[in-house]
Amino acid sequence: MVSVILLKPLYQGNIGSVTRAMKNFGFNELLIVGAEIEDEARKMGMHAQDILDGAKLFDTLEDAVKSFDLIIGTTSYESGKDDKFLKMNFTPTELKEKLEQVSGKTALIFGPEDSGLSNDELSRCDMTVSIPTAEEYRSMNLSHAVAVLLYELSGLEGKREARLASRKELDIMRNNIEEISELSGHTEKEKLFNEMVGKILGRSMITGREASTLIGFLKKIKGELKK
Amino acid sequence: MVSVILLKPLYQGNIGSVTRAMKNFGFNELLIVGAEIEDEARKMGMHAQDILDGAKLFDTLEDAVKSFDLIIGTTSYESGKDDKFLKMNFTPTELKEKLEQVSGKTALIFGPEDSGLSNDELSRCDMTVSIPTAEEYRSMNLSHAVAVLLYELSGLEGKREARLASRKELDIMRNNIEEISELSGHTEKEKLFNEMVGKILGRSMITGREASTLIGFLKKIKGELKK
Repeated sequence: MVSVILLKPLYQGNIGSVTRAMKNFGFNELLIVGAEIEDEARKMGMHAQDILDGAKLFDTLEDAVKSFDLIIGTTSYESGKDDKFLKMNFTPTELKEKLEQVSGKTALIFGPEDSGLSNDELSRCDMTVSIPTAEEYRSMNLSHAVAVLLYELSGLEGKREARLASRKELDIMRNNIEEISELSGHTEKEKLFNEMVGKILGRSMITGREASTLIGFLKKIKGELKK
Repeated sequence: MVSVILLKPLYQGNIGSVTRAMKNFGFNELLIVGAEIEDEARKMGMHAQDILDGAKLFDTLEDAVKSFDLIIGTTSYESGKDDKFLKMNFTPTELKEKLEQVSGKTALIFGPEDSGLSNDELSRCDMTVSIPTAEEYRSMNLSHAVAVLLYELSGLEGKREARLASRKELDIMRNNIEEISELSGHTEKEKLFNEMVGKILGRSMITGREASTLIGFLKKIKGELKK
C-alpha cells in the first residue's frame, strides 16, 4: 500500500491532477502538508473526488509521515547530485523491485513544484527515487511525475484478450509456406528463407483465429500450385 | 525516432503540457492535427518553446502520418474491447520491446481528450498501445498519458537496430498477397481477409531486407499461379 504525500503544493490544479493520476493507477490515500483543497483542485480532480474527500491535511511533514513504515522522497534526476544525502537514489523500476520485496505502509513524498524536496527533507527519507529525464530539461510537471511513478508502481499486468496462435499452428503455417516455396520453384537460399519465415511468424503475434484463416489460404495456394 | 501526433486536442493547456513531457524525455517532433497553437499552450509549454516552434500542423490525420513507417495508436485500457482488429494491443513495456528491434520513422498518435481515437482511426494504425489503468477510472489526462509513454520509450534511440520495411514495401507485399489470393481463387470474405493481411504486415516489424526477399517470393508465386 503506497500513499502519496504532497508537500506544500503551490498550484491547486496540480493537486487535482495528482488525484486523477492516483485514481487511474488504483492509489487512494492522499496526504497534503501545508495546503488546503480548493475549487480548482476539485475541478481538475475529475472523477477522483473521493480521494480529495478523504485527503488528510497536515501542518508539518513530520506529522504526516508518522504512521508510515517506509518513506520515499522524490527528487529530480541529476547524475551529478552530491549524493551525501542520496546514497539510495533509485530509478522507478528499481524502486518497484525494492517494494516488491517488502510490505508495510509506504509514503511517496513530492515536494513543491518550484523547488522540490530540500536536501534536508530528502535526508530524512528511507530512500529516494528519481525519474530519469533528459539532461536538457529535468524538471517535470508535478502531476506528470506522480503519473509516471504510480504507473511504474501499479501492479497491473497487461492482459491480452485474444488467444495467440499455438506453436503447432505456427508450424503448420511455416510448413505450408515452405512447401509453397518449393512448389513455386523459389529455391534461392532455401534454408535462410525458411528461418526468416519462422522468425517473422514468431514475432507477428498472430491470433488463433487469424492462423486458421491463413492456413486455409496457404492450403488453397498449395492446391493451385499442384494442379 | 518517435514523433508525437496530437489529433484534435481540445485544450491548449494540454498541448503545452505535452511538449513539456516530450522535452523531459528527449523527444522533439510534434505534429498537431486540427488545432492551432495558442498562448495557453505557450504558457504551459514552459521550457519546450522550441518544440512548439517546430510543431507541424495538419488538417487531416492521413496527411500527418504520410511520412511515417510505423504508426502506433494509443487507446485507453479496456480488457473487454471488442474489435477483432484491435486485439494486438500492447502495454508500454511490450511496445518498447517491439521498437527496440527495429528502426524507422515512428508516430505515436493521441486522440482528443474526451473521446480518444475512434475505432476507425485505431484500425488504420499498425499497432496500438494502452497504459494499464485501474478499472475504476481508465481515462487518463492527455499529458499524463504522453508522459508515461515517453518515460517508457525513452532510452530507445541508439538501441533500434534493423531498418523497418517502408510503407511502400509493405504496400507492395499487401498488393501481391491480394493478387495471389484472387489468382488462387481464395475469395472467402475478401475485404476482411485483405484488412487482416494489412494489419498483420503492419505489426510484423518486417525489415527492409526481409521485405525484399518476401516480395521476390510473392512474385514467384504469382508467376506460377498465372501459368
